[in-house]
Amino acid sequence: VTEAPLRDVPHGTITTPQGFLAGATHAGIKDPSPDRLDLALLSSERPCAAAGVFTQNAFRGPPVLITERHLANGRAQAIVANSGISNSLYGDEGMRFAEQMANGAAAQLGVAADDVVVASTGVTGWRLPIERIRDALPNITLARDGGDSFARAIMTTDTVPKQAAVRFEWQGAAYAVGGCAKGSGMIHPNMATMLAYMTTDAPVDPAVIRPLLKDAVDESFNMLSIDGDTSPNDMVILLANGAAGGETIGAGHAALPLLRAAVRHVAVTLTRQLARDGEGAGKLLVVRVDGAASVEDARRAARTIVLSPLVKTAVYGNDPNWGRVIVALGYSGAQVREADVSLSIQDVEVFRGGAVPFDEAALSKALAQEEVRIDLHLGAGDASATAYGCDLTPDYVRINSEYTT
Amino acid sequence: VTEAPLRDVPHGTITTPQGFLAGATHAGIKDPSPDRLDLALLSSERPCAAAGVFTQNAFRGPPVLITERHLANGRAQAIVANSGISNSLYGDEGMRFAEQMANGAAAQLGVAADDVVVASTGVTGWRLPIERIRDALPNITLARDGGDSFARAIMTTDTVPKQAAVRFEWQGAAYAVGGCAKGSGMIHPNMATMLAYMTTDAPVDPAVIRPLLKDAVDESFNMLSIDGDTSPNDMVILLANGAAGGETIGAGHAALPLLRAAVRHVAVTLTRQLARDGEGAGKLLVVRVDGAASVEDARRAARTIVLSPLVKTAVYGNDPNWGRVIVALGYSGAQVREADVSLSIQDVEVFRGGAVPFDEAALSKALAQEEVRIDLHLGAGDASATAYGCDLTPDYVRINSEYTT
Repeated sequence: VTEAPLRDVPHGTITTPQGFLAGATHAGIKDPSPDRLDLALLSSERPCAAAGVFTQNAFRGPPVLITERHLANGRAQAIVANSGISNSLYGDEGMRFAEQMANGAAAQLGVAADDVVVASTGVTGWRLPIERIRDALPNITLARDGGDSFARAIMTTDTVPKQAAVRFEWQGAAYAVGGCAKGSGMIHPNMATMLAYMTTDAPVDPAVIRPLLKDAVDESFNMLSIDGDTSPNDMVILLANGAAGGETIGAGHAALPLLRAAVRHVAVTLTRQLARDGEGAGKLLVVRVDGAASVEDARRAARTIVLSPLVKTAVYGNDPNWGRVIVALGYSGAQVREADVSLSIQDVEVFRGGAVPFDEAALSKALAQEEVRIDLHLGAGDASATAYGCDLTPDYVRINSEYTT
Repeated sequence: VTEAPLRDVPHGTITTPQGFLAGATHAGIKDPSPDRLDLALLSSERPCAAAGVFTQNAFRGPPVLITERHLANGRAQAIVANSGISNSLYGDEGMRFAEQMANGAAAQLGVAADDVVVASTGVTGWRLPIERIRDALPNITLARDGGDSFARAIMTTDTVPKQAAVRFEWQGAAYAVGGCAKGSGMIHPNMATMLAYMTTDAPVDPAVIRPLLKDAVDESFNMLSIDGDTSPNDMVILLANGAAGGETIGAGHAALPLLRAAVRHVAVTLTRQLARDGEGAGKLLVVRVDGAASVEDARRAARTIVLSPLVKTAVYGNDPNWGRVIVALGYSGAQVREADVSLSIQDVEVFRGGAVPFDEAALSKALAQEEVRIDLHLGAGDASATAYGCDLTPDYVRINSEYTT
């Protein structure tokens, strides 16, 4: 699949695709300052083919439980999301809160309650002030350019909203895929709630929307997170409303590869933005592994390295301490032999079956960039994968030691 | 097994047990300052029953490969260890270096080369200056009170040596177990080299020395580290020389439970010291899990929580953000049901099947201690485990961003 026909949309948002409206307001869920958006709505003019990927945490939050149930029929039409406090760990009361959010949004938008996606992110363990959400919901005005407000309203410790959109054409019809995401504790991204929403105006057969989403998530958000290491309310949702017209894209349709590439591109772009804005992060860290015996091995190796605190602190300090990368590869569980491995950091080869002499001062200087790239060749097969992360800085510790206080 | 008959030895070391001699010197392996000990020797007056537990990293260092081979016959008589640079990732040359360390120590001590344990810790990826080690080895003077020098010489970013010893008696004979350890990158302890040595003058049947060590390691060092996440040169060694006399303690011997308790006590004491001196650490974090469905579940849950960066930063900041503990439990993989779980932090109950109201200011104050204790009851069975860790501080980041530079 070539991505050449995909055109990035400058300042693209989740409402770049036709037929989607969004908006947000201040409900005062955690932060009392009135300019802090913390309650968001998105609505489609017509029902969408829809799919979701959810947390694997044993304590799944009510928003995840309810959204998964609502998406069981492959259809949705709206999203209601709050930030500030994550609705979880409050048993039946939390379930009622999530249902009230879905019902409130449904009534306001005139859609079916089981066509509403519910989401919640923020401090885990505090009680959700549902009455503030109920009171603030009617204040939200939906607009075609409301995607940016939606993206801002789901932020927690994020410093910037994460948004992307692409356009492509097929047999005269113009399509768009848009998306937004929020993340926070990026040292182990999986431990803080990650929410990501993608929309498209392409007409998608409900039978292919789930594999379409799964494929994109495996190459993007899952390479920022480790399976099973997830918070109670993580979710990634894809909605396709068909507002742009044209033939329904189903299994075997000639436009499916292009649509798949577009969704994947938006997902990877959001993932890079999430990594770049990890808590306290100064740099984006990209680890590419090829020559692996299997895709699982390549992903395991890339993710282990990108999550290693010792690699992340070295990247922060511009320290060409490449031994830490090899050590992390060694405990990743991937099939490796020392003699077959080669490693480059910022295109400087430092290891090829053994240490390779290099200019330490030059590499240290090369590490002082906003994006640091580590390339490993395992020499064990043909599989590859890319993982995304960030450096570990003193600011990460500061942010996370003062989160609730 | 009651530990009552065990008496801690104030300032006990690895040479507290009879018949062991140790010493150290400055070889200038990494740090040129002449008062920095970085080469250590330990010798027993007679051959010892010996066992080791080694790293599971795919790139095992030459010291591990050679020591494992030397211990295959269940016997050893000496240890040679260097700090500053860890001998690994240099292929055949590294193997020759490790052999030269073993041969040099053997010749100097008059023991067989295959009775020598070889160890190496420090920066991974630098070439070991073997000629400095060869030149400095003869400068080491062994002494009965040399255990403290040995413990200091294996330190890297450790701020204090870790040492412990206990005495116990059995049918008129007095026995001792001593030990020392070094560790460093304690956020994920497994990613930096951990070395630990224990000695005893009890006469131990070689057939039981391995299970004796394995039992102690499972309750101590392995609860600071996660299986499979280990550096190339991690090892834990137990030497028993029988210098105190008495009956050989083998399977079914009445003194075996007492000896097991003594070895375990030394191992747990060293583990607590390692955790307390984690890089940049200000606090010891002890997580106790009981009511688990299995020992594996209890260990998995306790270790996951103690390693969570979000829990560790909250402990650093005296932030009673208990939701992070529950979230970590949720992704640990242990069998749990929200309604059955209860959680106390510093003896303050904060969760019992749901949030329990508590005095946040009081708990924040209670967190401002050198030791923080988290107790979880899973309500799923009878198994329990304790894990040891430390808080995550800005100093951790500082130390690790400047390690090689």
